[in-house]
Amino acid sequence: MAARDILADWGVKEFREIDRAALQEITLGASILATGGGGDPEIGLLWALSVLEEGKEILLVDPDDMPDEALAAIAGCLGAALVLTEKPPGGRELFWCYQALGRYLGKPVQAVVPPEAGGVNTPVPMAVAGAVGVPVIDADGMGRAFPELQMTSFYIHGVSPSPTVAADEKGHVTIADTQDALMAERIIRNAAMAYGGISWIAGYPMTGKQLKETAILRSISLAWELGRRVMEARRKHLDPIEEVLSLTKGYRAFQGKIVDINREFGAEKTKGFSLGRITMEGIEEFKGHKATIDFQNEWLTLRVDGDLRCMPPDLICILDPATGEPIRTDIVRYGYRGTVVLIPAYERMRCPKGIETFGPRYFGYECDYIPVEKLMEGTG
Amino acid sequence: MAARDILADWGVKEFREIDRAALQEITLGASILATGGGGDPEIGLLWALSVLEEGKEILLVDPDDMPDEALAAIAGCLGAALVLTEKPPGGRELFWCYQALGRYLGKPVQAVVPPEAGGVNTPVPMAVAGAVGVPVIDADGMGRAFPELQMTSFYIHGVSPSPTVAADEKGHVTIADTQDALMAERIIRNAAMAYGGISWIAGYPMTGKQLKETAILRSISLAWELGRRVMEARRKHLDPIEEVLSLTKGYRAFQGKIVDINREFGAEKTKGFSLGRITMEGIEEFKGHKATIDFQNEWLTLRVDGDLRCMPPDLICILDPATGEPIRTDIVRYGYRGTVVLIPAYERMRCPKGIETFGPRYFGYECDYIPVEKLMEGTG
Repeated sequence: MAARDILADWGVKEFREIDRAALQEITLGASILATGGGGDPEIGLLWALSVLEEGKEILLVDPDDMPDEALAAIAGCLGAALVLTEKPPGGRELFWCYQALGRYLGKPVQAVVPPEAGGVNTPVPMAVAGAVGVPVIDADGMGRAFPELQMTSFYIHGVSPSPTVAADEKGHVTIADTQDALMAERIIRNAAMAYGGISWIAGYPMTGKQLKETAILRSISLAWELGRRVMEARRKHLDPIEEVLSLTKGYRAFQGKIVDINREFGAEKTKGFSLGRITMEGIEEFKGHKATIDFQNEWLTLRVDGDLRCMPPDLICILDPATGEPIRTDIVRYGYRGTVVLIPAYERMRCPKGIETFGPRYFGYECDYIPVEKLMEGTG
Repeated sequence: MAARDILADWGVKEFREIDRAALQEITLGASILATGGGGDPEIGLLWALSVLEEGKEILLVDPDDMPDEALAAIAGCLGAALVLTEKPPGGRELFWCYQALGRYLGKPVQAVVPPEAGGVNTPVPMAVAGAVGVPVIDADGMGRAFPELQMTSFYIHGVSPSPTVAADEKGHVTIADTQDALMAERIIRNAAMAYGGISWIAGYPMTGKQLKETAILRSISLAWELGRRVMEARRKHLDPIEEVLSLTKGYRAFQGKIVDINREFGAEKTKGFSLGRITMEGIEEFKGHKATIDFQNEWLTLRVDGDLRCMPPDLICILDPATGEPIRTDIVRYGYRGTVVLIPAYERMRCPKGIETFGPRYFGYECDYIPVEKLMEGTG
């Protein structure tokens, strides 16, 4: 039980043990916050559950309890979630990554922090922490999902992703070590392409001090509470969307049926991303209106009747109105019905460097970032 | 003088100090053997001379004098030589590579072995050895130049290129660690592309025992003798081509003027290689005949009047008839006159795994390998 030893060493007395039910709730909550990306939660959840079944412990600790000088790193996957569904992990990839990262750094990584809120990249880092025997910090790098390595609160507040280690199920390992985060992203993305579309990564080594200054804090707790409430709403036949809205201060921006999906194909064109645009026709109170949503792994922008209603880094979540289950970019299909929920991004994600790194212009839109609160003013 | 300390530690009494004149001769000889690739010898030579000027020693030692358990690695560059000419190195790239390789391996590399015979990849590893303070082993991995990482006698006789470290002049570092040599090549090639066409690499860590069993032995001595004789022929107004032929048991297969160059452009198409085909019209004894030579960084195949006369791994060298200076694929131009010299590959390069790895079929030709000795039977 090395994770308990580390916590004892840190003088931490309060932490939470993550059991099967907690993993299910956290994974559901994180997949809702993943804005259509983040991969298949079934894959993430199965991986994490298997670690519990092996008798390992997953211990969640508050970021304030991590010593300033201790070392944490992210663990997760990078690439097209569509591929992940067809090419599930073997289970050893992230151990190789952690092994190679520690070997290259020359010192042990004592904690895992999830890179993002996602159906894969929240439970899987928890699984890795359990398997490696280190605690999980209650934080992440986005408070949502985003497609690229540098698109984190860590990076925009001064933490480099390097060294980042990428591995696949066959044991191919690539390490990127550069202070240029876009170059690191490119090297790791190339590795993902060479591996067949997905790479498993460990990186962003950071001290506790850096983590506290740069991470989206207590976002695992938020995902947990969100998952718990949505599951409870399902059991009690209440509206799960209302639970999401009340907990996240979100907006119900559209409701409708997906009538068109325009998906880009081919590695040359997509560069390993799930890319495209969907069109929805309004139902109920939105009848007669039309919405279009662009995506690059995640839902990026929402237009209702041509007017922009949300742009990155604010969150667009398309949820099944009956179950609150998220509809993802990699599995979205003609005919699906969804409620579009918009959630303001964390303030840590909205600094100028953040808008430069993952705002609308980075994704090719010729417009300045306008917060969703402003775009939704007076829309109902 | 760490290189002397290492040699003393190995109990080596005989070794050769490489001075300015020796560097010039070795670089010329290696660039002749580089079969049109291997990059601009001016760049390699300047780098190596600068190390001597800093007061460092370059010590060449026979492979038999390297202890079985000592560790050597290659150092050099990978990518399109055309780019190298436009983007000269900063000088620190290979130190970063060596540093990262030792750090990742967790033990020091005690010797450098050049990866190939080339205007860059022979003198530059010697420069690195001098700068790092380790000896150079009198051997290489090809006895010629080849475009890809796995195309070495090391690999075909069982040594893995991994871990391989790639760096550029800005300090971007990529490490490939995989038992799949083609995947390592792909990762490092991708890094070269991301870096702008060229990456500097250190890799193929191997023991002295492995080196002796797999390398092309004493090929630096051969390049040295070749360069020395060609320079002497120039001074004495003798035929430098005759010197090349007599030392290498080569064939004078064609002489002519380059009348057409068909060069492929664009990263998508060329994948970072110099790719294309040249056509020569015969002069003197070859008047009325036509030769075509395909290239991928190096000259690959020679056809005279449509008949195949040489295919990889046998060597095609196009040399200036007056000076013996090699004509390279990256600088070849309409109007150049050249003598085409064919040289049989080392037997270590001709094993079945070698033919599979860098024989005609690997390069896309639908034919079995036929040794140049056989193809040239009865032609002259």
